[in-house]
Amino acid sequence: MAEAVEKGLVNPTGLISHGRGEAFDYLMGEKSLEPSLRAERAAAAFLLRAKNPVVCVNGNAAALDAKNLLELGRTVPAKVEVNIFHRTEERMELLISYLESEGGKDILGRDPDARIPGLTSDRALCTKEGIFDCDVIVVPIEDGDRAEALVAMGKVVISIDLNPLSRTSKKATVSISDEMTRALENIMRFIGELRGKDAEIDSAIRDFDNTANRRSMIDCICDSLHREC
Amino acid sequence: MAEAVEKGLVNPTGLISHGRGEAFDYLMGEKSLEPSLRAERAAAAFLLRAKNPVVCVNGNAAALDAKNLLELGRTVPAKVEVNIFHRTEERMELLISYLESEGGKDILGRDPDARIPGLTSDRALCTKEGIFDCDVIVVPIEDGDRAEALVAMGKVVISIDLNPLSRTSKKATVSISDEMTRALENIMRFIGELRGKDAEIDSAIRDFDNTANRRSMIDCICDSLHREC
Repeated sequence: MAEAVEKGLVNPTGLISHGRGEAFDYLMGEKSLEPSLRAERAAAAFLLRAKNPVVCVNGNAAALDAKNLLELGRTVPAKVEVNIFHRTEERMELLISYLESEGGKDILGRDPDARIPGLTSDRALCTKEGIFDCDVIVVPIEDGDRAEALVAMGKVVISIDLNPLSRTSKKATVSISDEMTRALENIMRFIGELRGKDAEIDSAIRDFDNTANRRSMIDCICDSLHREC
Repeated sequence: MAEAVEKGLVNPTGLISHGRGEAFDYLMGEKSLEPSLRAERAAAAFLLRAKNPVVCVNGNAAALDAKNLLELGRTVPAKVEVNIFHRTEERMELLISYLESEGGKDILGRDPDARIPGLTSDRALCTKEGIFDCDVIVVPIEDGDRAEALVAMGKVVISIDLNPLSRTSKKATVSISDEMTRALENIMRFIGELRGKDAEIDSAIRDFDNTANRRSMIDCICDSLHREC
């Protein structure tokens, strides 16, 4: 991550948020817990049902694991759009070029022609065909304001955020608390298992209770804290 | 903190560890909990009893709150020594000059003439009159190896580390899990309350159980997680 700052992919403050995430990963024992897996399976089901799914990519996410983000886009299939908090045209170009060098095609975000309602500043900028018109969106390591604004637009928001109590996790439709690479690989595995099985997809969506699942996550973390103590 | 990286005071990876700390501060509700206060009172007692106390300062600590670190040195009184993980002569000079510009006098660390046994690399370097010969040492945001090596030297190690489960917290004699500025201000307040009261100082030391206190800390964190949920 420190190298990604030098390359300009990640804002220095991105290292602080990465550290916050690491603390929660540590509390989870650095593995996908049962509630994480349940959320990942629900995410797979929502993505398979989506009409216009989008995978949203920011600097931290790209630096952590561009390959799996792009692979998720190909697997669903979903569009991939770059959308960053500290937006400059230079960093947008740097990130999109980086994703292209990692094998990404038709990456959206260079020419924004829409705004996410309710957000001030340049982080509202997005493309109409991508984030603006999507019905299901995967937001790894998203800031709380944007997650909230996307939910307010009526989208199914699938967050990947290690902190189950972050504003993003609290606002999302499906809150995955897991390390990003593990989350992406699990979602793709569940997509493979669920594809074509309509009844299973339906029940994976219907039976998923995000609030109860976040609560189970907290229980798991507390169990692990007490074990460590 | 991001500015302190630009000035060269903090290593970029220091931002990641700062973020890890922030996550725990968030779990504590960003205030000093009862177990934090108990550890801070014990720390004050140990410092008042010390023959040669030292406040150890690294880049993250200096960037977070140089003034209160220096103030603690004057209050006890204790020597202040700079000791950093990623040691270069340039960064040592930068940090010591910075502390001097903030009002620090006789800051140790420029001319190391001893080594902490059991540590490889330059982070073993210290001064004989300071870290090497001290009996009580305050280590804010210390790495686990060094905390362990200092304990092995027979010193009373007072750690300030937001994560109650970090290796530093597990190894220290008095593990303060609190945000650094709050911890320093509380310790100074307790020093004011305890100074000259021998019986109270004795009982503050005798009645403090670090393992039980760390366990209370975990209980407090889990309570707060469940409340937030």
